[in-house]
Amino acid sequence: MSAVEIIRKKRDGGTLSEGEIQEFIEAVTKGTWPEYQVSALLMAIFFRSMTTEEALLLTRAMVHSGKTLDLSSLPGTKVDKHSTGGVGDKVSLVLAPLAAACGVVVPMMSGRGLGHTGGTLDKLESIPGFKVNLKEDEFLAALKNVGCAMMGQTKDVAPADKMLYGLRDVTATVECMPLITASILSKKIAEGISALVMDVKCGSGSFMKNIASARQLAEMIQAVGKANGLQIRTLITNMEAPLGRMVGNSLEVIEAMNTLQGNGPSDLTELCILQARMMVQLAGIESSDAKAELLVKRALKSGQALDKFREMVKQQGGDPRIVDDPTRLPVAKHIAKVTANSEGYILEQDAYTVGQAAMKLGAGRETAEQKIDPAVGIVVCKKPGEKVKPGDTVYEIHHQGGGAATTATLMLAMSFRIGSQPPKLDPLVLEILE
Amino acid sequence: MSAVEIIRKKRDGGTLSEGEIQEFIEAVTKGTWPEYQVSALLMAIFFRSMTTEEALLLTRAMVHSGKTLDLSSLPGTKVDKHSTGGVGDKVSLVLAPLAAACGVVVPMMSGRGLGHTGGTLDKLESIPGFKVNLKEDEFLAALKNVGCAMMGQTKDVAPADKMLYGLRDVTATVECMPLITASILSKKIAEGISALVMDVKCGSGSFMKNIASARQLAEMIQAVGKANGLQIRTLITNMEAPLGRMVGNSLEVIEAMNTLQGNGPSDLTELCILQARMMVQLAGIESSDAKAELLVKRALKSGQALDKFREMVKQQGGDPRIVDDPTRLPVAKHIAKVTANSEGYILEQDAYTVGQAAMKLGAGRETAEQKIDPAVGIVVCKKPGEKVKPGDTVYEIHHQGGGAATTATLMLAMSFRIGSQPPKLDPLVLEILE
Repeated sequence: MSAVEIIRKKRDGGTLSEGEIQEFIEAVTKGTWPEYQVSALLMAIFFRSMTTEEALLLTRAMVHSGKTLDLSSLPGTKVDKHSTGGVGDKVSLVLAPLAAACGVVVPMMSGRGLGHTGGTLDKLESIPGFKVNLKEDEFLAALKNVGCAMMGQTKDVAPADKMLYGLRDVTATVECMPLITASILSKKIAEGISALVMDVKCGSGSFMKNIASARQLAEMIQAVGKANGLQIRTLITNMEAPLGRMVGNSLEVIEAMNTLQGNGPSDLTELCILQARMMVQLAGIESSDAKAELLVKRALKSGQALDKFREMVKQQGGDPRIVDDPTRLPVAKHIAKVTANSEGYILEQDAYTVGQAAMKLGAGRETAEQKIDPAVGIVVCKKPGEKVKPGDTVYEIHHQGGGAATTATLMLAMSFRIGSQPPKLDPLVLEILE
Repeated sequence: MSAVEIIRKKRDGGTLSEGEIQEFIEAVTKGTWPEYQVSALLMAIFFRSMTTEEALLLTRAMVHSGKTLDLSSLPGTKVDKHSTGGVGDKVSLVLAPLAAACGVVVPMMSGRGLGHTGGTLDKLESIPGFKVNLKEDEFLAALKNVGCAMMGQTKDVAPADKMLYGLRDVTATVECMPLITASILSKKIAEGISALVMDVKCGSGSFMKNIASARQLAEMIQAVGKANGLQIRTLITNMEAPLGRMVGNSLEVIEAMNTLQGNGPSDLTELCILQARMMVQLAGIESSDAKAELLVKRALKSGQALDKFREMVKQQGGDPRIVDDPTRLPVAKHIAKVTANSEGYILEQDAYTVGQAAMKLGAGRETAEQKIDPAVGIVVCKKPGEKVKPGDTVYEIHHQGGGAATTATLMLAMSFRIGSQPPKLDPLVLEILE
């Protein structure tokens, strides 16, 4: 079938066959379809979507477009975690060492931030010396020595995904369930894991703005993951307000380390414990919820989780002294404040606006080429449900001077509402798929 | 607004502003948007369509992407005719000289055939020496001397349309009302006419397969044409069966000349008289239907219409002797026959299959690069409603030998059905828009 016939078939609502999907992905990998045909098909998929079966075939074809890591030399079940991304979401930084401290092998291939969402790699790179571009043997060695390792996607892993993602970003075809599903899972499967905890964020600060679309994505990821032989636990979690109290790269590393010491904010701590428990269960280390959770909490309390983080930093070339002396991380020159002007409760706080403000400060990037500043960011001093008096600091803005701070201040001043009655807040974990 | 924001706006069902549409068309003309963004927007327009206002702005932007011919040195109202294309549709060949013989100035910019439909330029080029690539001054001189002239689209006229059409063809975005409307009207407006007879074909042999879609396109063209200051009469005509009895380039020139002498098939003659009458009325030469029709019929009967055709051929470098001696046109080496195998009436005849068979013989092209053979084609000896006996010739296949004749024979044998009762046939003219 020719490219234009495949495009027309999808355009008219048809279901693509295995051969057609393979042809498409091979053409993308080899560059034999011109990009205007690839983008036309992506837009047709955006409108017509794909069946779970098509998404499964697409995922497989994308896995086979490149190399698959071989982790069979490592003992045990390899478990990774993935989040669809949000504001202040530093769960991965806590989770990898925490689960590793419980005996789970955690090979984590992460991404960079784009737009209002942060990226794990950017956060890690705020640690002086930390290397995220590992070679396969370095990644294996780190996993063998430490039990967890965090790296960027290499160009050999799912190259079709890399090409498609770049094109989706500039043709308004990012927000499409089967394309998101295949993009996430092809990389995860290619990294050689056997189990995955999948966190689908839902709300203003994430890509899925409402529970219906979050559920649709969660169900597709779960179904396609299982069909590809992955053990998978999928949860839908709240991203209306930022997660934790820190947004920005070195600030989030600090908050992750606080959490690893048992001094983290309650929402972040809750989510890390829950997901670590799931990883422990998926790895077959403990099967009951109670026992698995106990193991996780002990790893936090005993300091083993923080030790694991220190080991990981050292293994990947970072300065381990930051753990005991966080002032060695990049620090912004100035701190500005946004204060409350009335008494009451924070009713709501818009994660998207907070994420956009952090990006304007330089903590994130608007386009893939922009450089980020690891030092800048926002501290969320008051969160939804908390009491405020006039003059109380709601946000601290960590900035380097210039106009960006003014922009961020104006944005943040608009990002929350105060009311006289405490708000009824949605739970942090909205759903767990069975 | 950036390209990706414009794509996203249309993708999400938004209405593009004048500035956004101008930006898009300027970017297409200058090549400043990469083609993958252009094709993504085209696919989004395919799904979301455009309002009449957007189609109007798109048409205007495409007119302004190039040069507009200045026909103001010619006296009178310049009237053109356009058809969305069909099988055996040689109306333009008859209409231009017929209307010119009635005093209408007819500047006709035509296209080439693609797929199962024929193109006026290809038909004209079967006349030895006939030149369709006129320069602007040659076109003006021909109009001044003869009253009608037929040429191809120059590269200066609506260049954005040329670029978009090429991309639509390979990205499955051809069948889209606002894009078709803007493509047709931008060329017509740029050629400097003030009135247009628009023939929207409906049925198997055309792009619009049913009356609902034909009506939608007709209404959009009529509305956008009027809003651009054109006087426009739009009709929807039947294209279930081929028009007339000849399909193929020199064969259609012969049938056009027969019709200009009053010896044409009844359906073709009816359509030519109706459309010529409309052109006479649009030109302000006669206002009543009866008087305008009388003028047209006289031009046929008196031989003036045929004389005008001879003049046009001569003016554009063609051999005028073909008018009195059609054997000077290219003739195929062989004639094969497809016969009836039962007695009764032809119930239906599929124009699309007849068009495809003609294309396989070499009368049309599958891709824009293919060369066509002017001599080959099909004579439709029996049409829907006509009586047949076993052994009667239904089609004559004019071919040059080789496998194509066999393919065409098989296709044509499947293209009609015979039944014992005469069929109830749809009228030739389905609707005329007011």
